[in-house]
Amino acid sequence: MIFLDNASSTKPNDEILGNFVEYQKYYFNPSSGYNVSVNETNLINSSRSEILGCLNARGNFVFTSSSSEANNIIISSLASNNKNAEYIFSESEHPSVYNLGLKLKNEGKIVHFVGLNPNGTINTNELFSLVNQNTRFVSIIHVCNETGAINNINEIAEKIKKINPNTFFHSDGVQAFGKIEVNLSGSVDAYTISSHKIHGLKGVAGFYINKLSALKTFVFGGGQEFNIRSGTTNAPLILAFKDAVLHASKNVKTNLNYVLNLREKLFENLKDAKDVVFNTEFSVSSPYIVSFSVLGLNAETIMNALSEKEIYVGLGSACSTKKAGNRVLEAMNKTKSEVLGNLRVSFSELNTIGEIDEFSTNLKEIILNLKEKLR
Amino acid sequence: MIFLDNASSTKPNDEILGNFVEYQKYYFNPSSGYNVSVNETNLINSSRSEILGCLNARGNFVFTSSSSEANNIIISSLASNNKNAEYIFSESEHPSVYNLGLKLKNEGKIVHFVGLNPNGTINTNELFSLVNQNTRFVSIIHVCNETGAINNINEIAEKIKKINPNTFFHSDGVQAFGKIEVNLSGSVDAYTISSHKIHGLKGVAGFYINKLSALKTFVFGGGQEFNIRSGTTNAPLILAFKDAVLHASKNVKTNLNYVLNLREKLFENLKDAKDVVFNTEFSVSSPYIVSFSVLGLNAETIMNALSEKEIYVGLGSACSTKKAGNRVLEAMNKTKSEVLGNLRVSFSELNTIGEIDEFSTNLKEIILNLKEKLR
Repeated sequence: MIFLDNASSTKPNDEILGNFVEYQKYYFNPSSGYNVSVNETNLINSSRSEILGCLNARGNFVFTSSSSEANNIIISSLASNNKNAEYIFSESEHPSVYNLGLKLKNEGKIVHFVGLNPNGTINTNELFSLVNQNTRFVSIIHVCNETGAINNINEIAEKIKKINPNTFFHSDGVQAFGKIEVNLSGSVDAYTISSHKIHGLKGVAGFYINKLSALKTFVFGGGQEFNIRSGTTNAPLILAFKDAVLHASKNVKTNLNYVLNLREKLFENLKDAKDVVFNTEFSVSSPYIVSFSVLGLNAETIMNALSEKEIYVGLGSACSTKKAGNRVLEAMNKTKSEVLGNLRVSFSELNTIGEIDEFSTNLKEIILNLKEKLR
Repeated sequence: MIFLDNASSTKPNDEILGNFVEYQKYYFNPSSGYNVSVNETNLINSSRSEILGCLNARGNFVFTSSSSEANNIIISSLASNNKNAEYIFSESEHPSVYNLGLKLKNEGKIVHFVGLNPNGTINTNELFSLVNQNTRFVSIIHVCNETGAINNINEIAEKIKKINPNTFFHSDGVQAFGKIEVNLSGSVDAYTISSHKIHGLKGVAGFYINKLSALKTFVFGGGQEFNIRSGTTNAPLILAFKDAVLHASKNVKTNLNYVLNLREKLFENLKDAKDVVFNTEFSVSSPYIVSFSVLGLNAETIMNALSEKEIYVGLGSACSTKKAGNRVLEAMNKTKSEVLGNLRVSFSELNTIGEIDEFSTNLKEIILNLKEKLR
């Protein structure tokens, strides 16, 4: 099996899974108040600090069950009743951000969606021209889950704050953290990360926030997670998340170099392939994600043919259960044929050069066969 | 160690934990669309059916990260903009239901909180007198997490529907399911259950709902869980939850008889203890939960003294990080001394008669010592 859809989810690391099993000894309810519960609460709070350390962030860290929940908590907290308040999102946001933007717009709020450059990064000129004294909230994805394009969030946040220091700046860092360097010592107010995208377990995620007071209660109940998100605090999963974060952080540079080679190999293998065009602009992108299109073919057909050979690649964003075209590629002004034939290869440090070769050979063969049928 | 706080959380079953580790092979994103993802989606949907079977329910089952989230989804979905709509909760609801009731009330909606009988069950006469043609939503806990009192939810739901067939009836079954018989073939519209209260893992829960159309999107994003609750679907945790549900369901009767003996033993041991009064009325309660008070002493002091001997009991509901007196006992008209000295013992089939004896001996000794100090 060759798994090249690591942006959708990753294989849990055996050591982290082993730790999780071990952490089941912390099965007490951290809210119970007796000594073993208090011990759990202390371990959870230490995990917050350790994760903040890996983000080079001060402030706080809130644990959630998913990055979608994290993004929803942040955005719904910042939604204001002030009719003049303005909100800015980009066309490259993950659905858990973008669809909330649409919701705010449908509620009659002033919402802007910043367009993209042909290379997949957001159009910063457009963004800065939209920021004014009424701008309450801006959310810009750090690494685009479709193309891998990196937005320089620190620089963007800083410039926004110069125009309006009261604007709250959030970034979804799910495809960035643990893969490229992340440093939140600057102007970023909130940043979302997830466990299962960095070889941790599913069911836990969270976000850095500089000021907890910006948040509103999202799940009412026993008051856990600073009364933002009630529900029994999940000590084993949080501790295993912390382990995944530490493990990924430690290996960012080594893995980045390794994955750069995988991407280079993929490019070498496919650059001359007939009807294959790259949507990802390598110079501005994380090497973990490569978007390309096969012109004249339907990407789903190719994906299915590959999966019959136990080779798994993504079909645009797998985070969405309903595909409604590819918003991101369309915002990059890609042709209809490029959108329809769009595949996403996403790497992990577990992939090998041999796998890239095998994938490339199979892909070319499948393209030839499918084109043959069309003649 | 003697763990008698099973209503707050339970020790995960080794077999279920083992299965969970095995299920990590399903690390694909179920939304990805290729064969192994589709396989995961099928397994998840089979789990829904199996869980519905254990509840003897038709309709659907929605997976969430916690029962608090489940309760929040249901209640916030049913909250209406109709100013005449009325909502009914009881004084014995879990904070994840009760605090949402308070929120609706603070928003200016018509909200009623039904009182309790001295035995801990809800006052059904009061409830039925409150139901009218404007009653939109009623939530009554199945087994009270503080006292174990059982409310006959099927009978209650049926009578409510006779008054107003359009009233939506929800019950939080977290302390009931897997412990007493649950049969949702009647008039109950939604029912919440949790994994970690039945020796499953933390981080997964869910609810039965008869009509998905009653629900609104709670977490926006990729559209998972019928577009109610976006976020990567957690195949391993859902499958392990299904296993916990099947395991608990299979053993309900055997465990119930076993735990009845534990409760009887506890009663025998403590019935003549000086200053100990039982708040739980055994004839109307689940045997899994026993609330009692030590008059003239602070429950927290007793709990801490017990925990130094590695004996763990609850201090009212552990689901809440902030204790604001004991709402439930107050609604049962307990005295201030009974409320202050209130402890909760909650059993599991893993407890033994020997543990009950050891707990009882230690408790009596601690009471004597503390009373001695007060003289």
